[in-house]
Amino acid sequence: MKEINIGILGCGTVGAGVSKLLLEKQALLESRIGARMRLKSVVDIDLETDRGVTFEPGVFTDDIHSVVNDPEVHIIVELIGGQGIAKDMILKAIQNGKHVITANKALLSEHGDELFQAAWEKGVDLYYEASVGGCMPVIKTIRESLVGNRIGSMIGILNGTCNYILTKITDEGSDFPAALAEAQAKGYAEAVPTLDVEGFDTAHKLAILNSLAYGMKINLNDIYIEGISGITPMDIEFAREFGYKIKLLAISKNNGDTVDARVHPTMIPFHNMLSNVNGSLNALTISGDSVDDIMLYGHGAGREPTASAVVSDITDIARNILSGARNRIPFLSCQWEHMKTIPVTPIDQIATNYYFRFSALDRPGVLSKIAGILGALNISIKSVHQKGRETQGPVPIVMLTHLAKEADVQTALKRISELDIVGDKPVLIRIEDESEDG
Amino acid sequence: MKEINIGILGCGTVGAGVSKLLLEKQALLESRIGARMRLKSVVDIDLETDRGVTFEPGVFTDDIHSVVNDPEVHIIVELIGGQGIAKDMILKAIQNGKHVITANKALLSEHGDELFQAAWEKGVDLYYEASVGGCMPVIKTIRESLVGNRIGSMIGILNGTCNYILTKITDEGSDFPAALAEAQAKGYAEAVPTLDVEGFDTAHKLAILNSLAYGMKINLNDIYIEGISGITPMDIEFAREFGYKIKLLAISKNNGDTVDARVHPTMIPFHNMLSNVNGSLNALTISGDSVDDIMLYGHGAGREPTASAVVSDITDIARNILSGARNRIPFLSCQWEHMKTIPVTPIDQIATNYYFRFSALDRPGVLSKIAGILGALNISIKSVHQKGRETQGPVPIVMLTHLAKEADVQTALKRISELDIVGDKPVLIRIEDESEDG
Repeated sequence: MKEINIGILGCGTVGAGVSKLLLEKQALLESRIGARMRLKSVVDIDLETDRGVTFEPGVFTDDIHSVVNDPEVHIIVELIGGQGIAKDMILKAIQNGKHVITANKALLSEHGDELFQAAWEKGVDLYYEASVGGCMPVIKTIRESLVGNRIGSMIGILNGTCNYILTKITDEGSDFPAALAEAQAKGYAEAVPTLDVEGFDTAHKLAILNSLAYGMKINLNDIYIEGISGITPMDIEFAREFGYKIKLLAISKNNGDTVDARVHPTMIPFHNMLSNVNGSLNALTISGDSVDDIMLYGHGAGREPTASAVVSDITDIARNILSGARNRIPFLSCQWEHMKTIPVTPIDQIATNYYFRFSALDRPGVLSKIAGILGALNISIKSVHQKGRETQGPVPIVMLTHLAKEADVQTALKRISELDIVGDKPVLIRIEDESEDG
Repeated sequence: MKEINIGILGCGTVGAGVSKLLLEKQALLESRIGARMRLKSVVDIDLETDRGVTFEPGVFTDDIHSVVNDPEVHIIVELIGGQGIAKDMILKAIQNGKHVITANKALLSEHGDELFQAAWEKGVDLYYEASVGGCMPVIKTIRESLVGNRIGSMIGILNGTCNYILTKITDEGSDFPAALAEAQAKGYAEAVPTLDVEGFDTAHKLAILNSLAYGMKINLNDIYIEGISGITPMDIEFAREFGYKIKLLAISKNNGDTVDARVHPTMIPFHNMLSNVNGSLNALTISGDSVDDIMLYGHGAGREPTASAVVSDITDIARNILSGARNRIPFLSCQWEHMKTIPVTPIDQIATNYYFRFSALDRPGVLSKIAGILGALNISIKSVHQKGRETQGPVPIVMLTHLAKEADVQTALKRISELDIVGDKPVLIRIEDESEDG
C-alpha cells in the first residue's frame, strides 16, 4: 500500500488532536483514501508533557529542521501558531517542495499573500481549511462548491469565545466581566482574552474569507474592528424587545469596486438563522448570486473539530499526490494571475441601520434636541423609546434608525454627547436586518 | 486556452439553468478554473420552447446519440430524469469513457450500485452533488470534509415542497389540502404531488446519503416512508405547546451493524436548529465522531441553486482532467472494494419517543384503560393532556412517551383503537429530542 508521509509541527491541542486522529483512524482513512496516512514526525519543544497520544519510536522529536528537510515527508502541517518560526518553517517546507497545511489565521491574514505566492511559484499546495470556522467546510465550500457563484456577502459568527459570552449575557443577564470569567473558567476563553473578545481573531478570519471569495489581496489593516467588551445586559434586553439578538459578526459585502469588511457587535432579527447560533458554536451565511443564501453551522474550535478540518486538507493533498494531480485547485477562488486589489470601504462610508441608547435627563425638550441633531444630519428615526421615568438621574432613551450613513451618525453622536442634558457616552450598535426598508 | 467540452442531456428547468450559468459566467469560470468550460451540446426532444437561453448554432439538438458518442465531449450532464433513457445514456457515456454528472436521485437510489460500478470499472467520474440538497454541498462535505469522521447520524429536511406545506400549516393554521393547493399555485408542488408529499423523494435522497456516508450498498426498499398528508393543524398546535415543531425528516442513524433509515413527520424541539428551517428551505445535520454536529442550510431545489451544484461537479471533473488526476476521489466515501451491505433496521425494531393523540369519549375510566394497555406493553408515559371537556362527542387525549419500542407502540395503538370508547384512528408522531432521557 502506498504511503503519504506527514510531518506535524507543533504538538499543542490541535497537533495532538491531528496525531490522535491519524493514528486511531488509520484503517478508516485507508479504506477511504486507498493509501496509508503515515504520521512520520511530530515536532515540539516540549517532549515531556503527556498529550494522550502514543507515538512510535522516532516520531516525536524536538528537531524541527530534520522534519522540514526530511525528503520522505510529503506534507508539512504547521500548528505552531504565531508569525515567527511558523512562517519560516512554512517557507522552508515550500522551498523543499513539500505541500503545506496550516491553521494559522493570524499568519495567513498578515502574510498570506507572500506564502501563497511562494507555494504557487513552487507548484505545491498550501491548504488552510482549519484556519476559519473549525470543522465547518468554509474554505472548500466557497472555493469549490460555490465556484459558479459571484459571492455577494458573507456574514458570520466566527469566534466561539465571543458567542459563548454573548449567549451567557443574553440567557442569564450576567454582565460582561462575569460572563468572561465564566468563559475563562470553562476553558472557552484565554487568560488574556483580548484577541478574541476585542474582535481581532474574527477579523483575521474575515480577511482570509475576503481574499478567498473575491480573489483580492489580503487586507487586514483596513478591516473595522469593534469587540464585545462594551456590551451590556441592558442593550441585549432592549434588543430582545425589538426582536433582535446581539452577536459579534464578521460582515463582508461585495460592492463590486469596494468591499465592506467589518467586525462589530450587531443586532440581527430572530428570524435570521444566525440569531439561533448559541454558545461556543459558529456559523457563516454565504450569499451567492445563484444559490441565494447558504449557511454552514458547527464547532469553530476545539481539538477534534479542528483536527477533522486538518485531516480533510491532508486527504485532499494526499489524493492529489496519489492521482498525479498538480496544482489542481488554486489556493483562493481564482487563478493566481487573476488576483486583484480591492479597497475596503472605510467605516465612515458604510450605510446601515442603527440602534442608539442615550442616557439623558428626563426633562421637557430633551428628545427634541436629540431629534433635531439627528434630523439635521439626515438620520431618519424609525422609533424612539424612553425607558422608565426618573426625576433625579438620567433615563435611557433608545432609538432605531432607518438606513443612515456612518459618518453622519458619528457626527450626530458627538454633538449629542456634548449636550449638557446627556450623560455617559451614547451607545451605538449596528443592525443587520434585510427586512428593513432602509 | 484549454477547453473542457460539456454535453447536457435534458433542457428542462435545471438543464436550462446550467446552460445559462455556463454561458453567462464563462469569464468568471475561466478565471477560477484556468480553462474554458465550453457548452458544446444541449439535447432535448423539444427544440421549440423558449428557455431564455441563446445557444450558439449547432449546440441545441434533439440527437442524443450524437452527443453521447461525440469524441470531443469530456463531460455528460444527465438532467433528463426518470430511469429509462437517462440510465441508458449514462451507461453509454461511461462506456464511451466520458465523465458523468447526474442530479437524478430516483435513478441513483434505485440503480446507483450498477452505475457506480460501471464508472469505477471504466475509470471515469460519476458525480451527483445536485441529487441531494440542491445547492447545499452535502455530498462534498460528507465525502471530503468529513473524511476523518465516522458518521453517526444524518438528520435533515430534504424536500422543499413538504417543508413549505408544513410551514404554511404551522404559521397560518391552514389544513393540508389548502396548504398543498397554495404550494401548487406558487410552483412549490407538482400537480401530482405524491412523490414529494408522501416522502418518496426524501427517501431517494436518504438512500444516497446512507450509501455515501457508510459505504453501504444502496438500500431504498427497506427505508420506512411516511408522508405529511395526515398532518393536521391540531397536531401542529399541540406540538407547539410542548415546545416542538413538526418537520418531515430524513433520519439516518448508524448503529454499527445496522442503520436506522426512515422518513416520517417528526416533532423536534425549538432549540434544534432544524426547527427554524422554514418555507422551501432545506437543511441537513450531520453528526461525526470528531466534529460533533455540523449543519448545512440552503435552497434544496430551484433552477439556479441546482445549477450551482451541477457546475461545482463540472468544475471538479474539469480540474481532474486539467491536472491529470485519474480516480482522485471515490464516488462514495470509501474505496469501491470496501463497500459493505449493511441492513436497515426494520421500523418495528426502532426505539424513540412518541406523541399520541386519541379521540376518546370524555368518560370516567377512559384514561385508565388507555394507560393500562400502554403500561402492559412497557410504554412509559411522560405526560398526558386532555384537551377540553365535551359531554357529547369525543375529546382529544394527547400523550408523550419516554423511549419506547415501535413494535410495542403499534401493538398498543391497535388495541387502543379497538376500545369502544375511542373513535377515529389514533395519531402517532415520532419525536426526535436529544434532551429526552428516554
